[in-house]
Amino acid sequence: MNGAREPDPGRNDHRREGRWQGRRVLVTGGAGFLGSGLCHALAERGARVTAIDAMVPGTGASAANLAGLPVELVEADLRTADLAPLCRDVEAVFNLAAQTSHMDSMADPANDLSVNALAQLRLIAALRAEAPAAVVVHASTRQFYGRAQYLPVDERHPVVPPDANGVAKFAGEQYWLLEHRVHRRPVVSLRLTNCYGPRMRIRDHRQTFLGIWVRRVLEGEPFEVWGGEQLRDLAYLDDVVSGFLLAAETPGCAGGTYNLGGASPVSLRQLAEAVVAANGGGTYAVREFPADRKAIDIGSFHADDRAFREATGWAPRHGLAEGLRMTLDWFRPRLASYL
Amino acid sequence: MNGAREPDPGRNDHRREGRWQGRRVLVTGGAGFLGSGLCHALAERGARVTAIDAMVPGTGASAANLAGLPVELVEADLRTADLAPLCRDVEAVFNLAAQTSHMDSMADPANDLSVNALAQLRLIAALRAEAPAAVVVHASTRQFYGRAQYLPVDERHPVVPPDANGVAKFAGEQYWLLEHRVHRRPVVSLRLTNCYGPRMRIRDHRQTFLGIWVRRVLEGEPFEVWGGEQLRDLAYLDDVVSGFLLAAETPGCAGGTYNLGGASPVSLRQLAEAVVAANGGGTYAVREFPADRKAIDIGSFHADDRAFREATGWAPRHGLAEGLRMTLDWFRPRLASYL
Repeated sequence: MNGAREPDPGRNDHRREGRWQGRRVLVTGGAGFLGSGLCHALAERGARVTAIDAMVPGTGASAANLAGLPVELVEADLRTADLAPLCRDVEAVFNLAAQTSHMDSMADPANDLSVNALAQLRLIAALRAEAPAAVVVHASTRQFYGRAQYLPVDERHPVVPPDANGVAKFAGEQYWLLEHRVHRRPVVSLRLTNCYGPRMRIRDHRQTFLGIWVRRVLEGEPFEVWGGEQLRDLAYLDDVVSGFLLAAETPGCAGGTYNLGGASPVSLRQLAEAVVAANGGGTYAVREFPADRKAIDIGSFHADDRAFREATGWAPRHGLAEGLRMTLDWFRPRLASYL
Repeated sequence: MNGAREPDPGRNDHRREGRWQGRRVLVTGGAGFLGSGLCHALAERGARVTAIDAMVPGTGASAANLAGLPVELVEADLRTADLAPLCRDVEAVFNLAAQTSHMDSMADPANDLSVNALAQLRLIAALRAEAPAAVVVHASTRQFYGRAQYLPVDERHPVVPPDANGVAKFAGEQYWLLEHRVHRRPVVSLRLTNCYGPRMRIRDHRQTFLGIWVRRVLEGEPFEVWGGEQLRDLAYLDDVVSGFLLAAETPGCAGGTYNLGGASPVSLRQLAEAVVAANGGGTYAVREFPADRKAIDIGSFHADDRAFREATGWAPRHGLAEGLRMTLDWFRPRLASYL
């Protein structure tokens, strides 16, 4: 599909292909937001899925995210666990385990580095020994581009990490790409923009601003918009999951780093309006950035993800209004379990 | 001096300024090649120097490198030592401590990361508490540019680390730059090209190819040139030391990352000829790259260091023939102690 500019909307429907049926798949960070989303999609396609998760309190990891799924959940920290038996003969790895809080990375950068880079080296070594041919799709981030020097941001944008999390996430990604270049493992790194959807973390603003907005609006409370004019492209869970599956399914992606963007960019103020509209009501207040956030804020961002679209045929299938409505509808009856 | 295109040759003479007299300076990796070179220069200028070195066997660190100097040598590993008393009230830090072997980084990337990134976080934290205003000049590397996409390589060149060492060294540098951006510490990062001179490691080819050439030619043995057509710019110790001092002395450099290059680029074959000529005789053989090296070889490299020249007035004052002759003359009577 290289060079095809018009995505085929049918490409995102992986089920018809049956290619995940019976395959042994590892999902790290499998009890978290995106990891559990992948587990749901893979289980639905008949894969034999093992989810590894350190179940760190406060990160959003929860066994409830996998409730009812035929997925083995192993509580294991990549930094310390014996990874060999978990890696043995797996055919694909979706690597979502990460420390994702920007604020936490500044308060404890060594912990952030140990999860986002050192633990990656352990997983790389275990897979090299136990599953040398497995394809790995690594969850990377737009974070290390820093403040955008131009928009939209493509993969050639300079890497200027605005916080410790960006430093360690870039290191982790680069270790995986080395594993491709030096040891020929098929590795794809997807640099994600802000993602949202069912099972996202909504308790507070430690990981994303949108989570706490969802919580507040569902509680009937006003939420705070910091700044307001910054642009963001938001990616809905199902589209992100689709991107991960296509990355694993497309041999031509191996060795690639791709931006994975979302729906058309909106300002935070427009996003706040869309949240209120999707909820059928709600209020928010626009505030100045708190000082500790301002130092690491990146301003406007939206991704140029044409390279990934062209390599795989992927395209987001959920607009912002629809995605927000689905997210709010999913959380409304489950709100108490996510606070 | 910003914007001055013609370097003033007098600028490199720091002694006349007396500005290091009595200043409390920390040099990490102070018993190694470049670190000890800085200790010599700082002691000569009357600074009160503490050298920290983990004295890891095989890295080139040696108390003999500081013999006779009024420099306090503290054996301390940045990963474990209590750094607070060492950092208390220092006015300048030259941060040379590093794992620098590319091959070792591939064999044990976790150790490489712990020295080049995790230990940096410990030093950053200790300095934040004990010496919040100290200027830091960090020894970075051209290594993480990877295979040059254009020549000469300027600071805007993409970061594509070709080995684990490049990944960790980039992370370490970026933590220091964050310390400037978030906490306003004056930090300058110098991305070094291949450096050579007195006290360099010459035992084997673990750190540089030129070291083993120096050893072999002084022993009257043939040395091996791998490849031969790759270009390199070689920086002589005194010029590198001069660059570090100027970086610390120039307030306008704070927050900058600068390439620090060397003399005009030559091919490895030309360099081999220059080594033989400087020695007044010798032989070498040109060989294919060994397979394990080829995977992480970067081809030709030479640095565009105009930004640093313009910011500081720095220029290399030692041509290749002169630098090689001074290096060989220095090692000739001391060869046995460096094997």
